[in-house]
Amino acid sequence: MRVELVTIGDELLLGDTVNGNAAWMGRRLAEHGLEVTRSVVVGDELDVIVEAVEEALSRADAVIATGGLGPTYDDLTRDALAKAAGVALVRDAALERRLRERVAAAGRELQPMALRMADVPEGAGILVNSAGSAAGLRVRLGGGVVYALPGVPFEMRTMIDEVVLPELAGEHRVARRTLRTAGVWESVLATSLAPVEAMAGIRLAYLPDPAEVKIRISATGADAPGLLDEAEASVRELLGDVVYGAGEQTLDRVVHGLLAERSATVATAESLTGGLIGAELTRMPGSSATYAGGMVTYSTALKNELLGVPADLLEAHGAVHPDVAAAMAAGVRERLGATYGVAVTGVAGPEPQDGQAVGTIFVGVASPGGEPRVIRPSLPVPGAGPEIREVLRRMTVVHALEQLRRVILGLGAGPAEASGA
Amino acid sequence: MRVELVTIGDELLLGDTVNGNAAWMGRRLAEHGLEVTRSVVVGDELDVIVEAVEEALSRADAVIATGGLGPTYDDLTRDALAKAAGVALVRDAALERRLRERVAAAGRELQPMALRMADVPEGAGILVNSAGSAAGLRVRLGGGVVYALPGVPFEMRTMIDEVVLPELAGEHRVARRTLRTAGVWESVLATSLAPVEAMAGIRLAYLPDPAEVKIRISATGADAPGLLDEAEASVRELLGDVVYGAGEQTLDRVVHGLLAERSATVATAESLTGGLIGAELTRMPGSSATYAGGMVTYSTALKNELLGVPADLLEAHGAVHPDVAAAMAAGVRERLGATYGVAVTGVAGPEPQDGQAVGTIFVGVASPGGEPRVIRPSLPVPGAGPEIREVLRRMTVVHALEQLRRVILGLGAGPAEASGA
Repeated sequence: MRVELVTIGDELLLGDTVNGNAAWMGRRLAEHGLEVTRSVVVGDELDVIVEAVEEALSRADAVIATGGLGPTYDDLTRDALAKAAGVALVRDAALERRLRERVAAAGRELQPMALRMADVPEGAGILVNSAGSAAGLRVRLGGGVVYALPGVPFEMRTMIDEVVLPELAGEHRVARRTLRTAGVWESVLATSLAPVEAMAGIRLAYLPDPAEVKIRISATGADAPGLLDEAEASVRELLGDVVYGAGEQTLDRVVHGLLAERSATVATAESLTGGLIGAELTRMPGSSATYAGGMVTYSTALKNELLGVPADLLEAHGAVHPDVAAAMAAGVRERLGATYGVAVTGVAGPEPQDGQAVGTIFVGVASPGGEPRVIRPSLPVPGAGPEIREVLRRMTVVHALEQLRRVILGLGAGPAEASGA
Repeated sequence: MRVELVTIGDELLLGDTVNGNAAWMGRRLAEHGLEVTRSVVVGDELDVIVEAVEEALSRADAVIATGGLGPTYDDLTRDALAKAAGVALVRDAALERRLRERVAAAGRELQPMALRMADVPEGAGILVNSAGSAAGLRVRLGGGVVYALPGVPFEMRTMIDEVVLPELAGEHRVARRTLRTAGVWESVLATSLAPVEAMAGIRLAYLPDPAEVKIRISATGADAPGLLDEAEASVRELLGDVVYGAGEQTLDRVVHGLLAERSATVATAESLTGGLIGAELTRMPGSSATYAGGMVTYSTALKNELLGVPADLLEAHGAVHPDVAAAMAAGVRERLGATYGVAVTGVAGPEPQDGQAVGTIFVGVASPGGEPRVIRPSLPVPGAGPEIREVLRRMTVVHALEQLRRVILGLGAGPAEASGA
């Protein structure tokens, strides 16, 4: 099953919008064993859209087009599909009724232009949009099928999951799953997983993010789902507690869940990350149950004044030191009355600081039992460009959350080099 | 001049990487008056790359291909261009020497595979990569030109700016510039700018981000640069102090610059944003000179304990109230000894809180002169999906930085609805 994507919109060609829709669809389809073999972006021009859809259909079994289904006159996907199919656009009574009801419910008046969204190519299937006004379309053309979906990400995603995937991926000759790890280098993971790579019908892919690696397991064959389960079990056995989650279970969600199960809370003390750890821990709705609050002690003096880090320690070693991380974690835990305290201090660059090299970073976690744990993550310094700083800050956030996870679960420091306390 | 993009790599089709390169090139080329008319993504397959390049050349004057120039056997762009041109790959002595020198300088041994990066299609122009190992290529084919550039963003960007743009955009019949505004709705801006839209040879585009709008001015004609200056002056006159910067001057950079010029500092008190404002104010290298630190008082009790917000105020009105924002801003300014204090409190959703609707947000700014200013930004609540929360948090960050900018400059609250103090 070969699938091509056609994403439509001048804003994509001009780069005003990054094509996140194409990336999301590629990922989602791959997870369900469907191969995206080409992806094209075209602007809001009728003939160009027609040509792009026809070309894609000449190569692929299915084409997914996004965008161009709104009410304005530069929304041309409906017209393009009608032209490609050689049929007229007809107004669909049920869609028109739905539009009128939505507008009336909002207490507004229907703009005549909006009725364009009730026009469909004759004979096309209508994909109701549970999240918005513009319906999607299914058009069968020359032995293949074209799905036209709205460009609004949430609406597109809903239709992919509710309509397109069930229709296209019914058979499942390929099965895929993604496991998530934090704080371990890709080459270390790959070495451990050699036995799984050698399994017949199994392929592994490593998808690195700053300080995280997602491992995508693909199984092919008659019993792909069974084989996938077997491979996943092997990966989990070989990597042990390094796997923190699967699929969409991001690290912030996992930590939030662990804290909520225990009716526990966490407080943060940040330096180089400037607030990113707190921001990450408050992404989830309901995070007020698990996140107490935090201090951003960017200056050295504030580490003493707000967190009680001993002044002589700061004087002797500067702010970038394992004992400072430990004192920050213990200080914020105590002062904010939280179950756990997480702290980071270090040099994000691009210049060294207090005689410490860029990438020297300490993460401290304080908990109800005993002394804080401090680790010094082994961070690859990413080149010498201006982006060092942001990458190191992101890596630090991941190591902080991962170490918090390990402490909550009673696990050791893990592959990150332990240092200090 | 029509340009098509061909970005190459399985990781793009699988969605493991978002196609940021295509977006960046689209934007950069548009700024220089070049129109990207189509953009295609193909995987690492020789014949597919050849076909995509040939198709693109049949429509466009120039094709820019990125990716597939590295040392491994799935790097196939060199081979594809040789095949398309009907020539052989030949090893370039100067490139080979350069590779050997780079490897020797790093104290490593040259892998035989790496020499593939010294192979070029016979007759091709070589674009030296000042930032990495893989050279770019220029191949003239059937009346058009193909540029092949590395997929590493920094290397690609350097070659676009140093080689491709000077070669393709020499004439500059179109000139473009982008101005940045924060906190004003797109429709309000567009209404104000009607006189500029009416200027002959001028086009305006509005590029919305959460709570920000970039205005791209395009001038065409014999004296495009002169016309552009004239239009820019009109936009600035019509919008006044709403324009906070141009081009790459992001709001965090502008604020950092204003504080640095005055040897002033800012401290932050955050609630719903969980630390995002502090994170934003510490993006810039050197931000320790202008950012003192912050408190993330996520729980209501901490607003009193850490920031001194009066307990009776919190009891009477809850945490989402203009007077709470004012007290938070004054409290953090005083306790952290900063010149300015910025605070936010509000409901990010997806559920209402303390009887307040999602999107009810107050921003406070305390300064050396008098009472804190509090505004209630008029925020469009973005639909009903799970992404509400993240969008509202981003918007709140922008309003906080924009209001800080206005206070530093002695400007009024601006178009955001002023409320409270």
